[in-house]
Amino acid sequence: MFSKYIEQECLGGTMIRRMSNLAHSLKAQKGNEKVIDLTLGNPQLPPPNAYINALKTIASTEEPLCHGYSSTNGDFEAREAIACIIDQFEEVQVTSEDIIMTSGCAGACNVFLKTILDPGDEVIIFSPYFVEYIFYIQNYGGIAIEVPTRFEDKWQINKQLLEQKLSNKTRCVIFNSPNNPTGISYTQESIDCILNIIREYSIKINRPIWVLNDAVYCRVVEPNIHIHSIFHYKYSAIAYSLSKDVSIPGERIGCLAVNPNIPNHNQIVNALATTNEILGFVHTNKLQMRIIPLIKYATVDINLYNKSRQLMCQCLDDLKIQYIRPEGTFFIFPKVEASLDEWEFCKTFAENGIVTVPGSGFGCKGFYRISVCQTPEYIQSIIPKFKEAFNKTVNQLYKKRTIT
Amino acid sequence: MFSKYIEQECLGGTMIRRMSNLAHSLKAQKGNEKVIDLTLGNPQLPPPNAYINALKTIASTEEPLCHGYSSTNGDFEAREAIACIIDQFEEVQVTSEDIIMTSGCAGACNVFLKTILDPGDEVIIFSPYFVEYIFYIQNYGGIAIEVPTRFEDKWQINKQLLEQKLSNKTRCVIFNSPNNPTGISYTQESIDCILNIIREYSIKINRPIWVLNDAVYCRVVEPNIHIHSIFHYKYSAIAYSLSKDVSIPGERIGCLAVNPNIPNHNQIVNALATTNEILGFVHTNKLQMRIIPLIKYATVDINLYNKSRQLMCQCLDDLKIQYIRPEGTFFIFPKVEASLDEWEFCKTFAENGIVTVPGSGFGCKGFYRISVCQTPEYIQSIIPKFKEAFNKTVNQLYKKRTIT
Repeated sequence: MFSKYIEQECLGGTMIRRMSNLAHSLKAQKGNEKVIDLTLGNPQLPPPNAYINALKTIASTEEPLCHGYSSTNGDFEAREAIACIIDQFEEVQVTSEDIIMTSGCAGACNVFLKTILDPGDEVIIFSPYFVEYIFYIQNYGGIAIEVPTRFEDKWQINKQLLEQKLSNKTRCVIFNSPNNPTGISYTQESIDCILNIIREYSIKINRPIWVLNDAVYCRVVEPNIHIHSIFHYKYSAIAYSLSKDVSIPGERIGCLAVNPNIPNHNQIVNALATTNEILGFVHTNKLQMRIIPLIKYATVDINLYNKSRQLMCQCLDDLKIQYIRPEGTFFIFPKVEASLDEWEFCKTFAENGIVTVPGSGFGCKGFYRISVCQTPEYIQSIIPKFKEAFNKTVNQLYKKRTIT
Repeated sequence: MFSKYIEQECLGGTMIRRMSNLAHSLKAQKGNEKVIDLTLGNPQLPPPNAYINALKTIASTEEPLCHGYSSTNGDFEAREAIACIIDQFEEVQVTSEDIIMTSGCAGACNVFLKTILDPGDEVIIFSPYFVEYIFYIQNYGGIAIEVPTRFEDKWQINKQLLEQKLSNKTRCVIFNSPNNPTGISYTQESIDCILNIIREYSIKINRPIWVLNDAVYCRVVEPNIHIHSIFHYKYSAIAYSLSKDVSIPGERIGCLAVNPNIPNHNQIVNALATTNEILGFVHTNKLQMRIIPLIKYATVDINLYNKSRQLMCQCLDDLKIQYIRPEGTFFIFPKVEASLDEWEFCKTFAENGIVTVPGSGFGCKGFYRISVCQTPEYIQSIIPKFKEAFNKTVNQLYKKRTIT
């Protein structure tokens, strides 16, 4: 009745969804106030006033065909506006010609991979990773090749580990900086490492290897963090969406920006736009495309997310929990105490009222992801409960071990 | 640099796009008023006031997380509202539980096919067909099997022709009623024919064969036309969108409705919702999902499209052009005069100021599609020009033939 793939790989749901569901059922059992759900990266701040006002303006501006079809790469004005955002961190100048508007980063990744992958092509991803990359790659017959990044390297790229996994089937390297789930941003050294290795390897195997940065968190960073340019490597693209920084993930609006200097640029943009069409997106939502040019650079107050993250880091410090200090995103990715089982820890922690996501949900056992996409006031308010639940969990697990 | 498939199959664009581009370039050459573009099914009436007012209401109603993620099957209220629309023509009662909100019918078809197809599975489509079905099927490794419907059968289903194409690899039959490009709606006899044949054949090959009706034009029909139920066959689903009848194709909002009586109903709905997520749609646009419950059954004034279609039919009658009288949709699919070449006819007709789409763009040579998605006033105004261009075209082509 189903595709075998869907039946075997997808029906269980991702670890993130399963933990989110666990949070819901624990709340139903114990009462809402007893369970703190830190599973999802669902931004809790309202969108900026610029967005809310632009929405009202557009809603009261009816023009002929303003709800009609757009071109498959998207409205010119929206592409122009989003190019300006990418341009804030890319050193090569990006214009509307380089942009395909998409249904968020998830849409951007799918459109990109469908356009470049032949069945059997290998795509490098770095663990810990956002688990849906694996589905996106497999959707088009690609094979996800995992390259670990390590706690002891502060989650930065490890040259040897990457080199070991390249092959003559490598078609693409996807990375995600600032990173979900670690919260770190790749250093210039990490970016150079990736780009130099694939530049050389492309020549060796005589076919281009693409690089894609899923930069959805590029504007959710500490003030001193610099997002490094990748467009000095020709075969490169950036996925970006307004979901996190403008707090409108439900509106499904983002883009794919391709390197302006790529060979056969127009043909590539056309191919991506065509893929957008035949995958059934056709193009992204027209109303949101009309809003974007009005909001310009507006985001939510990113300082609030930075504050929330810092408060949670302080809490982890107080508890002497080990983690690499995140520089952005909604996430912290602490170590589970060495002698404890990750799954047992997360399950017990959840039963004690704090629901997080085990690291194996990101291809990286022995860690767990805490989502801090709420206001600083909220994070402040849950810290006593977090500490209590953490201590209780650790005590229970050690005690249990002593008994058995 | 590209996927071989994208390079070989997609870069040329569909015949519809190519003719639409031809219309644009002819307009640029000859002046806007000299060229009449009847290529696209892009509805030209504005959305109903109910939609415009609902948009304003929603735009001024900010609630916590109202731009946040929805569930992957979509907001409950939107599913409930769209179930009521499907329920108007389905005899089996449809509820929110049977609905997955999608990015229009294109999204619905992709989500459906990805969920059910294994590579190598065959999907029956009836020519003339909406050409993108072939891409949607191939996206998931399926093989499109064309079964002709014929002018002499008034484009209804021909039992023998369908039976010949079934095999033990048949996984699904897609039909599109009311039909693009013919404009006809399948009779009860045609629907029964399809369902009876696949019911028997499913038993013979011992695996279910699905049926999907792309019913995007279900509300763009003459008043006396009845859309027939398919849900008395268990393995069935309907794709529908508000694109055409509410005139909001750019807003990318539609649904997949699955048969309430299908075995393993919940598992199927979950699988479809998961596919919606992993294909990168995640879910359809939140703002549009909030609008739908407010507009209820509102559509544009369908009588206007009926009037436009009738006016064009009268024009074709005056010219003694042969066609099967359409009962709905934006389209008429006339015969090219028997002795003329379809492509030469359409090209010359375009040069003479009327741009249509050759039937081979729908897998059916010897015909052409006229789109009448404009106001009756507009259609009335172009009829003299249409007649003049048609006569000129036919004369030129016969003359040319006499000379050569």
